[in-house]
Amino acid sequence: MANIKEIARIAGVSVTTVSRVLNNHPYVSKDKRTAVLKTIEQLNYTRNMNAVHLITGRTGAVAVILPMINSFYFSVVMDGLAQAALMAQYRLILCQTNYVPEEELKVLNMLRNKEIDGVVIVSTALKPEMIEPYCAYGPIVTCQNSGERPYSSVYIEHYAAFRHGLDYLHSKGHRKIGYCEGRENGSSASIRQSAFQDFLAEKGLPFDPEWMIFDCVREEDGAEVARRLLDMRSRPEAMIISGDHVAAGLIIEARKHGLSIPEELAVMGFDNQPIGRLLEITTIDNQLYQMGSAAFEIVHKHIHGSSLPVTRKLEYRIIERSTV
Amino acid sequence: MANIKEIARIAGVSVTTVSRVLNNHPYVSKDKRTAVLKTIEQLNYTRNMNAVHLITGRTGAVAVILPMINSFYFSVVMDGLAQAALMAQYRLILCQTNYVPEEELKVLNMLRNKEIDGVVIVSTALKPEMIEPYCAYGPIVTCQNSGERPYSSVYIEHYAAFRHGLDYLHSKGHRKIGYCEGRENGSSASIRQSAFQDFLAEKGLPFDPEWMIFDCVREEDGAEVARRLLDMRSRPEAMIISGDHVAAGLIIEARKHGLSIPEELAVMGFDNQPIGRLLEITTIDNQLYQMGSAAFEIVHKHIHGSSLPVTRKLEYRIIERSTV
Repeated sequence: MANIKEIARIAGVSVTTVSRVLNNHPYVSKDKRTAVLKTIEQLNYTRNMNAVHLITGRTGAVAVILPMINSFYFSVVMDGLAQAALMAQYRLILCQTNYVPEEELKVLNMLRNKEIDGVVIVSTALKPEMIEPYCAYGPIVTCQNSGERPYSSVYIEHYAAFRHGLDYLHSKGHRKIGYCEGRENGSSASIRQSAFQDFLAEKGLPFDPEWMIFDCVREEDGAEVARRLLDMRSRPEAMIISGDHVAAGLIIEARKHGLSIPEELAVMGFDNQPIGRLLEITTIDNQLYQMGSAAFEIVHKHIHGSSLPVTRKLEYRIIERSTV
Repeated sequence: MANIKEIARIAGVSVTTVSRVLNNHPYVSKDKRTAVLKTIEQLNYTRNMNAVHLITGRTGAVAVILPMINSFYFSVVMDGLAQAALMAQYRLILCQTNYVPEEELKVLNMLRNKEIDGVVIVSTALKPEMIEPYCAYGPIVTCQNSGERPYSSVYIEHYAAFRHGLDYLHSKGHRKIGYCEGRENGSSASIRQSAFQDFLAEKGLPFDPEWMIFDCVREEDGAEVARRLLDMRSRPEAMIISGDHVAAGLIIEARKHGLSIPEELAVMGFDNQPIGRLLEITTIDNQLYQMGSAAFEIVHKHIHGSSLPVTRKLEYRIIERSTV
């Protein structure tokens, strides 16, 4: 492949002139510019962008850490990120880590090695104290409240949002309340568990460990929950479920067995997913798309010089439909 | 930041020795290696990976072109790609292009500029003749049959798969068959349309333009189709629907209005999605996850020297459930 010296020699100009033309520098005569561009075309010259990145110190790329892309939650957040990145003409490196800490650290080391300009952590197995040292190498934005940490975040208050949902169930007269969650030890999941248990304790409501069910991620998991509920001697009157897909599975399976919803079992979803609209599931909208786009906007501002960490809280709201 | 010369000076060794240590070259004495590593630690030296990429000519990254990530189809393919990339310790650059040709060409130009080692095109608005010139710059794999083109592909035969589904409906006695599709002009969609029209013509079945409905992408679109069908004077007896999400929307809405499925309307889905399992939708499994993982494996082999284009055809099969 032709290099810049060769182009200068063939075009009969200096290396500086070629460099100026490549970088759209104004102080080049029209004749020389034409000569350089013609030569470039003749030689089918392409710039090695790695050299450009080395010189400019920027790569135009941001890495995104998430456990899996094939889930409604993460693909909506990724959609928001990707649209904002496209607008800013930035590239996203998708790092699907399956929550393996070593893989997540590798991504943070890309920041250290200047392979990327910033990192967005949508969800991670890493503790904040493991993330913090990497702030020295470039901007990091997480989708969980970073509090006093030196990196930025955009988040919803899972505790308040979940309590809001529980209050709503309570206001509709429900006292025996069950709960479906994804990963038992996930950081947002842990916050929701606290909200659930605090709420029951404060209101003096019964807590039955059988009514708190983990590892509910897909529609089928919801269907399995429905079958378990139907087999219980003492069943909750209402369920709060993190994820409308899981709620959809529960509702479809429960109705198949003749259980009427909301009369015999009220169901409150979470995430405001399209399947929830279709089945008229009462749910909590938590602005997942906006979380992705805001996370990108914040990392992009940091890349372009804004240095103070930002914590942006997103709103949530209950969408009343017909399952509570 | 410290550079390699500074490390050599402080460690009291040559630049060559530092370089050998950084690249795990065997011919370095233990003492010198220790001195270099200690100095690196002292100086908190990090390699600029752009320099490494410039020297090695490889970036360890593959770009993925797709229109949107927030769709079941694309997120499953991406999942397959991401798992295979993680195994190979490669990074994926997600290029969500919204089918804008200029954006797609920018990604192909990244190959030209050596910013990436290869490209996987999951779905594109570009014609094959626009893709072909970029094969000169590195490996390209598409998820549509590339035929005699000089790049690789992994694909399902949409024509045969769709006809197989139509044959199945026909074998169950259905003669008035309707069809729901996504983008009217999508390349796979166009193939399925031909399959549909050829099938009707060959079997001498009635074709009613009202029964061929486009722009069906989400659950709600399926629900809208159900309402349209209910309003028709003459309704099809069976629908073939590209995408189980759309089929789910149709089925739920149709049942809400008292239409019994499959007795009054048979429904055949496509893609074998989780919602289809839950609603017991008869569908065609087309191995989307395998498409992603195979596409990555092929591009990875090309990066490591295999130069002949590969076309890999994936199997499809009907999954009999209860909606036909």
